[in-house]
Amino acid sequence: MKGLLERLKEGPVVGDGSMCMTLEKRGYCRAGQWTPEAVLEYPDAVKQLLREYLRAGADVLQTPCYASSDGRLKRGRITYKTAEINEAACDLAYEVAQEGDALVCGGITPVLSYLQNKGEEAIREEFNGQLDVFIKRRNNVDFILGEFFGHIEELEICVDVMKKAKMPIACTMRIGALGDLNGVSVEECAVRMAKTGADLIGLNCLFDLNATLKTLKRMKNALDAEGITTPLMCQPLGFMCPEVEHTTNGYSGLPENPLAQDPRQVTRFEVHKFAREAYNLGARYIGGCCGMEPHHIRAIAQELAPERNRNPPVQDMCPPCGLLDRSSISTIQKKVDMEFWMKVKPGSGRPYNPPCVKVAHVNRF
Amino acid sequence: MKGLLERLKEGPVVGDGSMCMTLEKRGYCRAGQWTPEAVLEYPDAVKQLLREYLRAGADVLQTPCYASSDGRLKRGRITYKTAEINEAACDLAYEVAQEGDALVCGGITPVLSYLQNKGEEAIREEFNGQLDVFIKRRNNVDFILGEFFGHIEELEICVDVMKKAKMPIACTMRIGALGDLNGVSVEECAVRMAKTGADLIGLNCLFDLNATLKTLKRMKNALDAEGITTPLMCQPLGFMCPEVEHTTNGYSGLPENPLAQDPRQVTRFEVHKFAREAYNLGARYIGGCCGMEPHHIRAIAQELAPERNRNPPVQDMCPPCGLLDRSSISTIQKKVDMEFWMKVKPGSGRPYNPPCVKVAHVNRF
Amino acid sequence: MKGLLERLKEGPVVGDGSMCMTLEKRGYCRAGQWTPEAVLEYPDAVKQLLREYLRAGADVLQTPCYASSDGRLKRGRITYKTAEINEAACDLAYEVAQEGDALVCGGITPVLSYLQNKGEEAIREEFNGQLDVFIKRRNNVDFILGEFFGHIEELEICVDVMKKAKMPIACTMRIGALGDLNGVSVEECAVRMAKTGADLIGLNCLFDLNATLKTLKRMKNALDAEGITTPLMCQPLGFMCPEVEHTTNGYSGLPENPLAQDPRQVTRFEVHKFAREAYNLGARYIGGCCGMEPHHIRAIAQELAPERNRNPPVQDMCPPCGLLDRSSISTIQKKVDMEFWMKVKPGSGRPYNPPCVKVAHVNRF
Amino acid sequence: MKGLLERLKEGPVVGDGSMCMTLEKRGYCRAGQWTPEAVLEYPDAVKQLLREYLRAGADVLQTPCYASSDGRLKRGRITYKTAEINEAACDLAYEVAQEGDALVCGGITPVLSYLQNKGEEAIREEFNGQLDVFIKRRNNVDFILGEFFGHIEELEICVDVMKKAKMPIACTMRIGALGDLNGVSVEECAVRMAKTGADLIGLNCLFDLNATLKTLKRMKNALDAEGITTPLMCQPLGFMCPEVEHTTNGYSGLPENPLAQDPRQVTRFEVHKFAREAYNLGARYIGGCCGMEPHHIRAIAQELAPERNRNPPVQDMCPPCGLLDRSSISTIQKKVDMEFWMKVKPGSGRPYNPPCVKVAHVNRF
Repeated sequence: MKGLLERLKEGPVVGDGSMCMTLEKRGYCRAGQWTPEAVLEYPDAVKQLLREYLRAGADVLQTPCYASSDGRLKRGRITYKTAEINEAACDLAYEVAQEGDALVCGGITPVLSYLQNKGEEAIREEFNGQLDVFIKRRNNVDFILGEFFGHIEELEICVDVMKKAKMPIACTMRIGALGDLNGVSVEECAVRMAKTGADLIGLNCLFDLNATLKTLKRMKNALDAEGITTPLMCQPLGFMCPEVEHTTNGYSGLPENPLAQDPRQVTRFEVHKFAREAYNLGARYIGGCCGMEPHHIRAIAQELAPERNRNPPVQDMCPPCGLLDRSSISTIQKKVDMEFWMKVKPGSGRPYNPPCVKVAHVNRF
Repeated sequence: MKGLLERLKEGPVVGDGSMCMTLEKRGYCRAGQWTPEAVLEYPDAVKQLLREYLRAGADVLQTPCYASSDGRLKRGRITYKTAEINEAACDLAYEVAQEGDALVCGGITPVLSYLQNKGEEAIREEFNGQLDVFIKRRNNVDFILGEFFGHIEELEICVDVMKKAKMPIACTMRIGALGDLNGVSVEECAVRMAKTGADLIGLNCLFDLNATLKTLKRMKNALDAEGITTPLMCQPLGFMCPEVEHTTNGYSGLPENPLAQDPRQVTRFEVHKFAREAYNLGARYIGGCCGMEPHHIRAIAQELAPERNRNPPVQDMCPPCGLLDRSSISTIQKKVDMEFWMKVKPGSGRPYNPPCVKVAHVNRF
Repeated sequence: MKGLLERLKEGPVVGDGSMCMTLEKRGYCRAGQWTPEAVLEYPDAVKQLLREYLRAGADVLQTPCYASSDGRLKRGRITYKTAEINEAACDLAYEVAQEGDALVCGGITPVLSYLQNKGEEAIREEFNGQLDVFIKRRNNVDFILGEFFGHIEELEICVDVMKKAKMPIACTMRIGALGDLNGVSVEECAVRMAKTGADLIGLNCLFDLNATLKTLKRMKNALDAEGITTPLMCQPLGFMCPEVEHTTNGYSGLPENPLAQDPRQVTRFEVHKFAREAYNLGARYIGGCCGMEPHHIRAIAQELAPERNRNPPVQDMCPPCGLLDRSSISTIQKKVDMEFWMKVKPGSGRPYNPPCVKVAHVNRF
Repeated sequence: MKGLLERLKEGPVVGDGSMCMTLEKRGYCRAGQWTPEAVLEYPDAVKQLLREYLRAGADVLQTPCYASSDGRLKRGRITYKTAEINEAACDLAYEVAQEGDALVCGGITPVLSYLQNKGEEAIREEFNGQLDVFIKRRNNVDFILGEFFGHIEELEICVDVMKKAKMPIACTMRIGALGDLNGVSVEECAVRMAKTGADLIGLNCLFDLNATLKTLKRMKNALDAEGITTPLMCQPLGFMCPEVEHTTNGYSGLPENPLAQDPRQVTRFEVHKFAREAYNLGARYIGGCCGMEPHHIRAIAQELAPERNRNPPVQDMCPPCGLLDRSSISTIQKKVDMEFWMKVKPGSGRPYNPPCVKVAHVNRF
């Protein structure tokens, strides 16, 4: 099976999507804590969701263990240990990945030690606690990803720790127009991420499709200016939230976050457009974060099928525009091509709601 | 275990939610055909969704076999037979229902013979083909439901056929403000449904929460005027679509239907409000149709917990407002009570889209 | 000069527009009272507005004396008498009409005696008080109009009183989908209005362009069914307010009424569309009520120029699309034809406001 | 009578509002050309509008001669000369100003010579052509204003020319977030405007209330940083257009500009909020540009009445919330205080339109 670096050379890689936020809707995760103990308590429900991403065309299944660092588990009042969660997460991801042709990505989470200023040694130790399982299960893990960093400084330490795994390394930041939480610009973050030596760098979470494209473009320009060619990745939100583009806390500042964001959910066609534009901007690993569900990941895989020379496994059952010619309703039968769907501007059906809301500005997580 | 009629006497019964439209997003159903062969091809994925409804608090799991009549399967180019689909649907629903305390409801679909004017005998035969499996598996089926009728005339024949099963009978129509597809008013439909002798009558699909409440109110008034006390049920859409309130084809007339309705998705709090108002209007069986996903069904069960003297199984993990006091973000920690959430007017995040769209008017399916 | 009836035969007649609500913005009328004493206190400002309607293409200048009945003046704490206001209103309208080719229409207002159930004699007397001036100045008044009736019963009395003037008679009601304030249907109102013997019947105020078209259509159908050919008139609001379509108090139920309705103001192109559709539905006298300002009346005259064989006096200066080819901005230079403008969907520029608002339902004025 | 500088010391000065765009709606100006020949052709209509601003509380009446430079008149196909237009404009403004306590401000327009790179001498000559009349009528002109500059460089030349008039000098630029049309930042523009020696500096046109506040704040910060205390003025648009905040062409890039902007019209209460915030940011001369009509200027004067120790002349007739307690409608009677009105979020009444639209980006006028 081809590894990450080989795949990146051949064409765009499709990542997987939303875990905790989707599992919460399905009844397997606690909103507020967003901790990953479902891998131990409801492995079948987690595997089902991973399987849906696999069928949707994901090349990668990430170990579903976000927030599995000792500090975050403790804050979330979870008594399981990082190691047992990460082990279970590895097993589930590997098991489902074997049902298809997907890689397993070991996920690393920012650590409380950094926020609490416990010093570099403590920070490294908390990263090591997450990483050790992936090293132990190295036969089942294809590459590792440090994600959702708000501070380039912490990311740099993390990548340094990750190097001992001797696997391909990816890393992403949760930054938007304002740069990192210490005020480091998008451009500087991009260059410093690349200079860690990571194989893949980019963005995840907090911002929507449009904002992510804008930040990605700035990153690309900054890297180009330095002659850096590290490939870019992005895993944006599955929710539209232009209001927060110029904040650091992103969608978590919306009044609707996290329980009433349904009307902001992106459509598969908005994702098609995004995937195409992200690819054009140079992104070579495109997936999703909170709110990007299986039909959205499918849209990425289908949009980039020409560049990837393959369709997602679910293609026959769920082609990009469905099988609407088989509908019994004449007006629906006609909606058979992308041209129609790419032009549709979906309504919210809520004329008594404002499309945008005032947001809370919070500067730190 | 208590049966349907006994439960209806004790308090409101919670139905389950969206099947085909949710399975399509997960990659297990064909948009356009919306046929139920997943029960044979992907039983685990179907069971997983049923299980989510069970955990969300549904008292009833409907056999996932909508469109499983010989005519509709043929039109959908499906070679499986009604009998084999319905058998599998029974088995899956029964198996999951045993994991909790749920009833199994055998679902009957309107028939093409009626639309094609093949005469009452052919109509009865097509209904019988669906019903036979439920009779055969009568130990595993608690009641039967004829749903999504556009014509009261056809419903009347269906209920007459259903009587031979000697089980409690429910029936619903897909009607809105304009009444049935032959122009029979909402009020007359209500009275005629009740006069079939069905134990539970009501509405499903095509219209949104608000439109369903309005139609329900007219039904209730008409029944009251005749001194009829048959309890009411409703399983509305999980999409907001005020534009179609005064059409007969409902949400199928939206340009966005069926593939780009995500921004119309209801929030759990909109469902709380709906469930309360539906109950106040006299509805005693409240569930959902297309687009009503597990977190929405959970909202019904949680809103009506006082009347039902019980919470859904998933209550500890997913209380109505999550466990947001455990969030690491201070603004989110405060969103701990329903008062906050019931006031939030969620935005669509799409200021460049109109909230409402012009709809296609189609008068027949 | 041709009279009203002759003009109606030749083609559609264009009425004038908003008086009190526009004068309030200009600083010459009291919001809340909406009384017409400006004709005495600020005659030049009133004449200027009348002149603008004349230049915009109005065939008719209505005496600006709405609310000039003894009851309403008293309620509005105005000490001027009906007679002195109506005389001044006649003089101003006549003076400006002479600057062009316009008719003067004497306007009659519903009376408080009716609302206060003072009996038919008192009602007739209050109407007579308004009418007398128009009879006295009959050389300067071309026809009379009883407008803004909420009750067909009161309108019938008014028209009966008006007959003694021996002038052409027009009358309008402020009704929408729900019919009059006693529950008389739109259809019955239409037929009864016609049966008073009035020469011109129709609708004014309270409802927007779209709602007025719907009510007009029902009126036309009802008249057609009776073989009645009385021509129709309409003078709708210049504000969009779909929320109030199914109320009796119309736009006065909006929270924004009367001081913050600016974003609801119709565009000239929305008026073009309305004028065309109203004409197609059979309206032969088309003008405006509150919020319909000179550029809107101009749009009516310009839209119906082919049917009227003439353009408004202001045509050279203000053709339908301006003289945009003379703009210094290249993108604006291109906006020279109606096709462009009729397609533009103007935004509100307020993504943080809902387009529709909850309305107060008041059943009586 | 107190002059400009004296008034600025005593409290905030209220400017007047929209001329050409309002006169076009009234039928006295050509859309596209926006030239000021109405002062010669329709002096009464122009005086009426000036009078409305005076009554609304304007301290200043600007000579209505925008675009009256030889270059612009020629481009607009107007054969009148700058001198005759400016003379008439002076006379009208002075005549109306005498009806109250207002100052006359002589307005100077950017010149085509600058855009056409004709060299500084030609530029100075074109400014002189405008200025000469004001010098000649110096007894009737209280101060002079160079406005709507897109380039700080041109403004600097203009102010230098203006100095020979030996009157107080004001100047404004039409800049937003992106700074001037040569890319000079807002901050630098502010400092350079002040360093011309002008007595009053600021912003006018192109951007809406919110965008103007943001730019004003940046200007104030830049001036503070340099220890500069020149008072600030602003005369923003009367249309909401957040879409153009990050463009240089402002509202002229809207598809709706200039003929279908009605739904973007600000409300008087939006102006109250703006006036308060502008004052708090340090603005000491607050008026309006295109779309700011008499009721909006009134809102500025009423909002700042405490700081000005006086109300507008029209106060008794048109207090801030009208005289709604005298309404005959009970729900309206209650809307008597500002608290209600400042909270109202007016709807557009257009649920089928998007609130925001895609804009054309044009970099030069």
